Amino acid sequence: MELKLFSLKSVSVPKMVGTDMMMFSSPFTNSGLLIGCKEAAIQSFSCRVTFPKASYSSISQNTVRSVSGEDILFQSYPYRVNGTNGSNMYHRDARVLDAYDDEYNGVIVHSEGLPSNPNAFTSILRSSLSHWKAKGKKGVWLKLPITKSEFVPIAVKEGFQYHHAEREYVMMTYWIPEEPCLLPSNASHQVGVGSFVINEKNEVLVVQEKYCATGLTGLWKIPTGFILESEEIFTGAVREVKEETGIDSEFVEVIAFRHAHNVAFEKSDLFFICMLRPLSTKIMVDDHEIQAAKWMPLVEFVKQPSIQEDTMFKKIIDICIARMGKCYCGLAVHQLASKFDGRLSSLYFNIVEDKSSNCRAS
Amino acid sequence: MELKLFSLKSVSVPKMVGTDMMMFSSPFTNSGLLIGCKEAAIQSFSCRVTFPKASYSSISQNTVRSVSGEDILFQSYPYRVNGTNGSNMYHRDARVLDAYDDEYNGVIVHSEGLPSNPNAFTSILRSSLSHWKAKGKKGVWLKLPITKSEFVPIAVKEGFQYHHAEREYVMMTYWIPEEPCLLPSNASHQVGVGSFVINEKNEVLVVQEKYCATGLTGLWKIPTGFILESEEIFTGAVREVKEETGIDSEFVEVIAFRHAHNVAFEKSDLFFICMLRPLSTKIMVDDHEIQAAKWMPLVEFVKQPSIQEDTMFKKIIDICIARMGKCYCGLAVHQLASKFDGRLSSLYFNIVEDKSSNCRAS
Repeated sequence: MELKLFSLKSVSVPKMVGTDMMMFSSPFTNSGLLIGCKEAAIQSFSCRVTFPKASYSSISQNTVRSVSGEDILFQSYPYRVNGTNGSNMYHRDARVLDAYDDEYNGVIVHSEGLPSNPNAFTSILRSSLSHWKAKGKKGVWLKLPITKSEFVPIAVKEGFQYHHAEREYVMMTYWIPEEPCLLPSNASHQVGVGSFVINEKNEVLVVQEKYCATGLTGLWKIPTGFILESEEIFTGAVREVKEETGIDSEFVEVIAFRHAHNVAFEKSDLFFICMLRPLSTKIMVDDHEIQAAKWMPLVEFVKQPSIQEDTMFKKIIDICIARMGKCYCGLAVHQLASKFDGRLSSLYFNIVEDKSSNCRAS
Repeated sequence: MELKLFSLKSVSVPKMVGTDMMMFSSPFTNSGLLIGCKEAAIQSFSCRVTFPKASYSSISQNTVRSVSGEDILFQSYPYRVNGTNGSNMYHRDARVLDAYDDEYNGVIVHSEGLPSNPNAFTSILRSSLSHWKAKGKKGVWLKLPITKSEFVPIAVKEGFQYHHAEREYVMMTYWIPEEPCLLPSNASHQVGVGSFVINEKNEVLVVQEKYCATGLTGLWKIPTGFILESEEIFTGAVREVKEETGIDSEFVEVIAFRHAHNVAFEKSDLFFICMLRPLSTKIMVDDHEIQAAKWMPLVEFVKQPSIQEDTMFKKIIDICIARMGKCYCGLAVHQLASKFDGRLSSLYFNIVEDKSSNCRAS
């Protein structure tokens, strides 16, 4: 029960759970919010905000707290059940939008409580902002479903900015104080995986892309792709191999990862190179995207000019060879629970105590 | 010059560069787009799309190609310079929105070319969609700056969906074909860092949060935070330490990382635990967020109940102790260039050849 309660609560704290855990502090503390908020503020500066960089360090407890407003939006019931702050309640005033106060002096508009017509929305949004300003509120979160898209320009006219959007909604925010906006940013990274599947004969599972630039026709490469929403790195690596080649495999280790920036929509990219152990041998090519797949002797694979001529690719192959020679320590995955968010999550590290570990350091 | 050209091009391919590199194929190939597109489609399914999961594998070269449309939007000049496809040109037809064809049968509306009034936009958007449908186009990318927010509901009425949003714009998309939408998703992860700064006396640099849940008052933790937009993990770890404690340090290794899901805005979280070497000793506390900071004997640090009682925290400490005993291999960082995108990026791996490596495997 305690775990459940933690889980509900922690899931609801935007951008804070992951760090909170490693901070050795609980999602119930403000510390995670504080750091997350500060970081978010800095991220904002590096986007388009014109506040002086110095100012993001002038964080007050109140401004910080509004970061957690979001959680009520998505997790209102557990939040309210767990909440210790009596201020968690609806505004009943007809001139004020149906909204929650969060525990941190922020306001979260209740999407389901939005009026149906634009004129009504215009006037109630205005009176709501005056009301919240008068009450010394900080951040306002307004989630507009796509069915209410006509409210977007109205909110913009009143000073709201876009925060993030998913297919079915746009999240808008309004920062009331004069001081710099300290609301958190949206996700910053995409995550890809590459799978080195190497059998006992030192043969690498390689594929040829169906749609390939002329210069690279005939190049043999490892299976790769992006992990799915909420997918584990180790399952994504196995899935990609199965989809492209029909080969069953098991994850062994993350042997390296690459960090690149300004890749997609000005976001960053983390790419995890995984070593996998094959569990089957018969290749069945996915003919939608793959021209051919085969087991290729490592030596031949490395000989390919596109690899020999590229510093990074060459280095990655060197690492794989070192790993195969038990002269390298990759990161294995372990599912561990933490009482601070009551959930299992994946921790990638060397198997320190495990005798079968290839890390023979002593 | 070649690098420059590669760089311009590769930066412009959404979500593909990172994976393309590890795919051992060039950003010029469709392969990256194909995989990225497929992944994006799958990600869409796991969002709100109702197409059967099976259908994402039915990818045609054309549908796939529209993924790269985005690049023209952000990188039109290099794209057009590099483009080998004659179809890269403005539509001059007054009844059709000023747009680019991409090389992959997609259409990217030129934001600067949008009409100024909503009625004009309504009629030209309609005739544009008919025009593009008639021409067998696939994905349509419409980036609406916040100054044109009144166009949002118009686009929604015509069937556009939200793709993503940043402070100053919302990106909308329209998928023309009957088949499942194969446009890529937005970023899926946030990235945090935790810094273990351990001196030669086995003292850990720890902080006490200023705003801390009653139950955790007095807890000593390591400095943590989120990395900034386009910031490296190794610089983010050093920055956090400096900001919170005033201590200068140098990055040694990523010793482990944690992957958690559904953390913020339904996105995932990657948290990197870094080992750092202190370069100074005098602590200056950031009194905005930190109550106190000090050098704490590792033994005392580990003894804290909040750590002893938590599986994950305990494991992380075990790893750090193993690392200090040279019985663990973390991942060091190396800046490497790849000719395939002509940029430096960070590859994290064991120092295989380096004699000073603590990985004594042989």
